[in-house]
Amino acid sequence: MPLTAAQIAAALVDRVGSDAVVTDAGKMGAYLNEPRKRFHQGAAAVVTPPSVEAVQSVMGWANENRVGIIPQGGNTGLVGAQVPLLGNEVILSLHKLDRIRSVDTAAGVMTAEAGVILENAHRAAEAAGAMFPLWLASQGSARIGGVLSSNAGGVNVLAYGNARELTMGVEAVLADGRLYNGLNALKKDNTGYDLKDLLVGAEGTLGIITAASLKLYPLPEDYETALVNVASPEAALDLFQLMRQRVGSRLNAFELIPHIGLDIQLRHGMLDADPTASASPWYALIDLTRMAGTEPGSLQAALEAAFDEELIADATIAEALAERTRMWAFREQMSECQSREGASIKHDVSVPIAAVPALIAEGTAAAEKIAPGIRPVPFGHMGDGNIHFNFSMPVGADPKAFMAQYDEAMHAAIYEVVLRHGGSVSAEHGIGQLKVDLLKQVKDPVALEMMRAIKTALDPHGILNPGKMLG
Amino acid sequence: MPLTAAQIAAALVDRVGSDAVVTDAGKMGAYLNEPRKRFHQGAAAVVTPPSVEAVQSVMGWANENRVGIIPQGGNTGLVGAQVPLLGNEVILSLHKLDRIRSVDTAAGVMTAEAGVILENAHRAAEAAGAMFPLWLASQGSARIGGVLSSNAGGVNVLAYGNARELTMGVEAVLADGRLYNGLNALKKDNTGYDLKDLLVGAEGTLGIITAASLKLYPLPEDYETALVNVASPEAALDLFQLMRQRVGSRLNAFELIPHIGLDIQLRHGMLDADPTASASPWYALIDLTRMAGTEPGSLQAALEAAFDEELIADATIAEALAERTRMWAFREQMSECQSREGASIKHDVSVPIAAVPALIAEGTAAAEKIAPGIRPVPFGHMGDGNIHFNFSMPVGADPKAFMAQYDEAMHAAIYEVVLRHGGSVSAEHGIGQLKVDLLKQVKDPVALEMMRAIKTALDPHGILNPGKMLG
Repeated sequence: MPLTAAQIAAALVDRVGSDAVVTDAGKMGAYLNEPRKRFHQGAAAVVTPPSVEAVQSVMGWANENRVGIIPQGGNTGLVGAQVPLLGNEVILSLHKLDRIRSVDTAAGVMTAEAGVILENAHRAAEAAGAMFPLWLASQGSARIGGVLSSNAGGVNVLAYGNARELTMGVEAVLADGRLYNGLNALKKDNTGYDLKDLLVGAEGTLGIITAASLKLYPLPEDYETALVNVASPEAALDLFQLMRQRVGSRLNAFELIPHIGLDIQLRHGMLDADPTASASPWYALIDLTRMAGTEPGSLQAALEAAFDEELIADATIAEALAERTRMWAFREQMSECQSREGASIKHDVSVPIAAVPALIAEGTAAAEKIAPGIRPVPFGHMGDGNIHFNFSMPVGADPKAFMAQYDEAMHAAIYEVVLRHGGSVSAEHGIGQLKVDLLKQVKDPVALEMMRAIKTALDPHGILNPGKMLG
Repeated sequence: MPLTAAQIAAALVDRVGSDAVVTDAGKMGAYLNEPRKRFHQGAAAVVTPPSVEAVQSVMGWANENRVGIIPQGGNTGLVGAQVPLLGNEVILSLHKLDRIRSVDTAAGVMTAEAGVILENAHRAAEAAGAMFPLWLASQGSARIGGVLSSNAGGVNVLAYGNARELTMGVEAVLADGRLYNGLNALKKDNTGYDLKDLLVGAEGTLGIITAASLKLYPLPEDYETALVNVASPEAALDLFQLMRQRVGSRLNAFELIPHIGLDIQLRHGMLDADPTASASPWYALIDLTRMAGTEPGSLQAALEAAFDEELIADATIAEALAERTRMWAFREQMSECQSREGASIKHDVSVPIAAVPALIAEGTAAAEKIAPGIRPVPFGHMGDGNIHFNFSMPVGADPKAFMAQYDEAMHAAIYEVVLRHGGSVSAEHGIGQLKVDLLKQVKDPVALEMMRAIKTALDPHGILNPGKMLG
């Protein structure tokens, strides 16, 4: 017979002390309510282990007693991986493991515990004269363990990679409490299977990441940033290729934003000034790294070349930090600004870069057919082929009725286009509980079988984040 | 009762036809003899499937009949992963799967089958105006499947990563003949466990890679290359940090070479001219990418800064292609030149970059204590913390006696230093059969348990490259 919530709480108090167990419904709210308020299950308890040993102790007990454990970081995930699915699980919050164990700029590595807030990791790196180049909208609350478990991306993937590429090694507690010590500061290590990359992005279903060694980079001297008018996603793609040819790996970000985003932000007073040169159907936000040994001007020269090739018609290059900040705010407020316009239907998708224009054209056509008056707001990481393909409801529509009527049909239509172009139905945000059924439909069946076999091998009783990702 | 070699050969002919089965001892030699001639087992047969379906058919049969299968590419591996351990296995050569399925520079991806020779992959990329940046000494015979299965590195890992980072997706035949289709051209895809990175570097023990989607990069306009005199590995490390600060990700290669390497190569007429500026105990070979939008001169400016800081005393910047080629030949002949000087004891190790000077100092001291007169030749990828820590026998020593007397003791001494600095006993070359016992001694025991669990989950009868990596 499964343990009751009271029995679970009592056993956890026995293991880690009452300071590390939360059962009060009010206090549990912070752990249960996720950003988009889509998932509404309770939990048997929340446990907040103060040490890696305490995590091990909890897992040893949970494994013996078949109690589901949900690892949680900053609770910023968008697919429900970090909140309960069944209601009888225990949330294991890593927030007390918030120590930066070491920063070694000479070796180019920082070892941070799972509970370190991403922004604090940035600060620790900068204090040592280095950079940890992973920036997310949620960096003020997202924690390293969750960032890695979801293989988070962000705006500088183009130059530095996802969380996976920025991680050298991890330490993790396995389902039965064993501790895997894979921390290292090595750029090359061919001694066995790539367990690090298996744990990164596994959404806590294979082990609980307790610490990670993260890559540090030299701080750039400066950036060169521009907001460029482009006539279409095709023109943006050509401009992207030109930039890659001319500046290679210095290209830090290449983000696409539709005019409607500017419109909404100006209307709602979200920008203190218009950051663009002139009106344009699309804008590309381009950001280059400039190291100490390079003169400024590469971006200007590249944009002049693009003018000469008639790829672009107008552009603003940020002259001062305030301008650069405004350009980035324009990009970063794209998600938030949509909420000011009522309901929106969202897709976090990727395709091969060359297929981005087709994705946007075909997805827009399909959406407008389904829901006349719907407002497409596709934006995001064009340089990674990763578009947040969002749609705001028609002006004046009723949010609830809009979602009820169109949510499902829109998903089906957009994913059809994505899959036809060899794309991914979850580029950044993961599977969690939101996309479990979708994954079963679209993933290579042999890949699913391999994933299940690995899951069973590492978590035979299925207690790690039960039901997530694989169902 | 296990099948006899004759039964195995007959069954294979049944499956894939006699054109795809080799049993003649003479003809099998090419598959059995590996580069360093350290492993001397026979095989039941060699099978050379002409299609992915034929690989599946062979594996389905092998799994049912418990016949060990050794996937083989260009047979260039240095740790015996691609040749038999027991003598009753079948070598499955992928060399007939040598088609480049597609090259798409707009999407930045090339799909190549496992049997494509690395140099042919380079050519296909270049013909399309792009670059596949993985260069190895063995690129004229190494094949993509082996390059990926061993997670090969090479001289440009600093800027582009190992084979793992250069691979977007793989297609692989599993132990029981199922086909995993993980080919894609996506920079971001968070739909499940990272199976690609599990198969890359698994040395054919989890599946047989039959094709891969590989990242393409824009061709640089040019390179800037210099050979710089550095007084010590410490000075080289400081110079490396200065370069990273000034040119960031444009730093393509940073290789360390000891004076003895120049000495040997000049003595044996391996260089048509001395590529160095003047005599120095150590040299750093520095290579920068220059894209079309950047003026030349970054390397010169950086070296001037290094002079000003008294980090370096002399340097030659390559003015013409011939000079650059000679500098690179000097580096690339480092392995070969040692064989002109009799026996040598080799270690392919890595440490955190900051520990490279200590590794070289402590390793050299330990070696000279064990074998007076021994000649240390540590060289390699300083920027990756990856040193080929080799030792040539004392002048005039007897090669066989030298190896018999010192091989084991030297390994123990060098690995002790490596492990003390948190390093890896196999940075590039892998485990194969050469380092199975070593791996058991030095690897985190929980990591080994996880690896075994994954192996059993994906290859329950242990027929994929039996005995390799995990023993």
